[in-house]
Amino acid sequence: MEIKIEIIGFGTVGMGFLEILNKKANILKEKYDFLPKIVAITDKMKGSLIDEEGIDIQRLLKIIKEGGDLKDYNNGFFAFEERNSLDIIEEIKSDILIEMTYTNLNTGEPATTHIKKAFEKGKHVVTSNKGPIALYYKDLKKIADEKNLLLGIEGTVLSGTPVFNLIEETFPPNSIKRIKGILNGTTNYILTKMETEGMSYESALKKAQELGYAEADPTADVEGFDALAKVLILSNVIMEGDLKKEDITREGITRISSDDINEAAKSGYRYKLIGSVEKEENGKIKASVKPLKISFSDPLSGVSGATNALTFETDLLGSVTIQGPGAGKIETGFSIMIDVLRIFKKINKQERK
Amino acid sequence: MEIKIEIIGFGTVGMGFLEILNKKANILKEKYDFLPKIVAITDKMKGSLIDEEGIDIQRLLKIIKEGGDLKDYNNGFFAFEERNSLDIIEEIKSDILIEMTYTNLNTGEPATTHIKKAFEKGKHVVTSNKGPIALYYKDLKKIADEKNLLLGIEGTVLSGTPVFNLIEETFPPNSIKRIKGILNGTTNYILTKMETEGMSYESALKKAQELGYAEADPTADVEGFDALAKVLILSNVIMEGDLKKEDITREGITRISSDDINEAAKSGYRYKLIGSVEKEENGKIKASVKPLKISFSDPLSGVSGATNALTFETDLLGSVTIQGPGAGKIETGFSIMIDVLRIFKKINKQERK
Repeated sequence: MEIKIEIIGFGTVGMGFLEILNKKANILKEKYDFLPKIVAITDKMKGSLIDEEGIDIQRLLKIIKEGGDLKDYNNGFFAFEERNSLDIIEEIKSDILIEMTYTNLNTGEPATTHIKKAFEKGKHVVTSNKGPIALYYKDLKKIADEKNLLLGIEGTVLSGTPVFNLIEETFPPNSIKRIKGILNGTTNYILTKMETEGMSYESALKKAQELGYAEADPTADVEGFDALAKVLILSNVIMEGDLKKEDITREGITRISSDDINEAAKSGYRYKLIGSVEKEENGKIKASVKPLKISFSDPLSGVSGATNALTFETDLLGSVTIQGPGAGKIETGFSIMIDVLRIFKKINKQERK
Repeated sequence: MEIKIEIIGFGTVGMGFLEILNKKANILKEKYDFLPKIVAITDKMKGSLIDEEGIDIQRLLKIIKEGGDLKDYNNGFFAFEERNSLDIIEEIKSDILIEMTYTNLNTGEPATTHIKKAFEKGKHVVTSNKGPIALYYKDLKKIADEKNLLLGIEGTVLSGTPVFNLIEETFPPNSIKRIKGILNGTTNYILTKMETEGMSYESALKKAQELGYAEADPTADVEGFDALAKVLILSNVIMEGDLKKEDITREGITRISSDDINEAAKSGYRYKLIGSVEKEENGKIKASVKPLKISFSDPLSGVSGATNALTFETDLLGSVTIQGPGAGKIETGFSIMIDVLRIFKKINKQERK
């Protein structure tokens, strides 16, 4: 069955998603009868490419690989000046909007407006954008539910490593008492280097920047803002809290020294930047991001390098930990893929009724 | 919606399942409109209790807690001499058969015959019994598919920790290249004690026996037979192999000494009993159970005590590891619960059409 998809914000994750669609086209067709048709790609910097007959993914990927871009596709409609993305959501007929614009943790825009417009037009939404989910999840979910539409957010935490789909499909009727984990790969990489290679914080950060794990201004990572956004999402999506950024204690890793790390190691502990959400006896949700000394016997202590992990404490299953990538082109592209596939299954079932 | 369930084999796992149904009755009703009705419980040792109006779970649990058993329920039909379980599957009307008789890894019986009979009568099946799945999964799955019935097997590997449902719901279209993991809690407990407390193999085994982790005859665990059954299941269910027991290399932990463990630790390694399944370039499936020296940086090396874990190596997501309980009354009872809930959702959708 053909599903029409439009993409807003075409960066690394979007490329990863298209590469997966291309690589897995046969399996998607044979196993699920899923025929994705990309009808529009729009990006603030790269322009808008529209082809209601479906963009030839293989050809577009080849053009980009050879140094070209959307403008060189030479088919369908292309406009270099950004065509208003809201107009595209309004005018182009599609089943799913994939929202991958830049994350803004202060306003959630322009993504929040894009998502609302898509719901208004009866389109399902998949996003890896933390802004709208950290700030406005409850509102967006309410609109989606009212319209019987899905909002796929797997990529907002731990990239494609299963978190939300894991919980929804494999945990009920467990009640989750606490979630704690390593939610930021950059800081975990820095702490790992400081411990295993005796590097100073400054050298480890420099190394992380060289490898592209950390940005030139590393504040969002090292001061815990990125982890905070993910903790906010876990609080409000999984623990059904209603927290704001200000409700969450935040401390980064800049004050951890090599001496602290060595001292901890001597007594069987390891520093990790831990995001934590807990439901207290009175039902109140308490959340924090801070460096904690974790015992070597804790599953999270073995999570090294840029890897991420989450431990769920549940009433029936006890502790369950999932560990996997927290970033990456294909890894985050996969988070989009799995949510698109779940939406496809839903549409497919409705159509067959 | 009311779903009729019959239980064959009523031991620890069955009790765990009933306790969950009792504890979560409100959530199951309110969130899913799921009203489970246990119409028959039959057990080789305890007799058969049949009540087509639905057994009062709370009352039965109370009777058992106070030292009574099925025979003391005093309602419905009870027969002390075992009523032929095949007759019960044949005669009692139900939607789901839960098969929890003892595991026989040589014949898969009586479970395999029970499951086939249930499919013949149009009943879905959930089982935590490794025998029929290790030996006859392909045959059973074929029959289930032909009749549009589900075969839930979450509990056969890692108890209720998500494995099969995790893969089915959150991994596609990843292709899995290798699965490796710690599949037996008893041996992992023994190895952990030997390393962290400097115990000899004999003392650690004795301790495991005292705690009920190991049986009086520990052969099935320490010689790797239990892990082998699980590797066989992973090979044939997830990797779509067609292996027999004899195709899998098996070595237990009895030859690992404290000296081996100390020597490994000095160079940053830890002994673990690792079950492994790999798809080779030519498509051939290769599987083994053996003690391996694992680097401290491997997620599996941090899995201590009776905990289990599996690492999946995939083409899109890279390595993803799930860690959680591998046994336990409530933990394995939950594996039954999640599969029953999934079947309920399927029935519910069909009914609403």
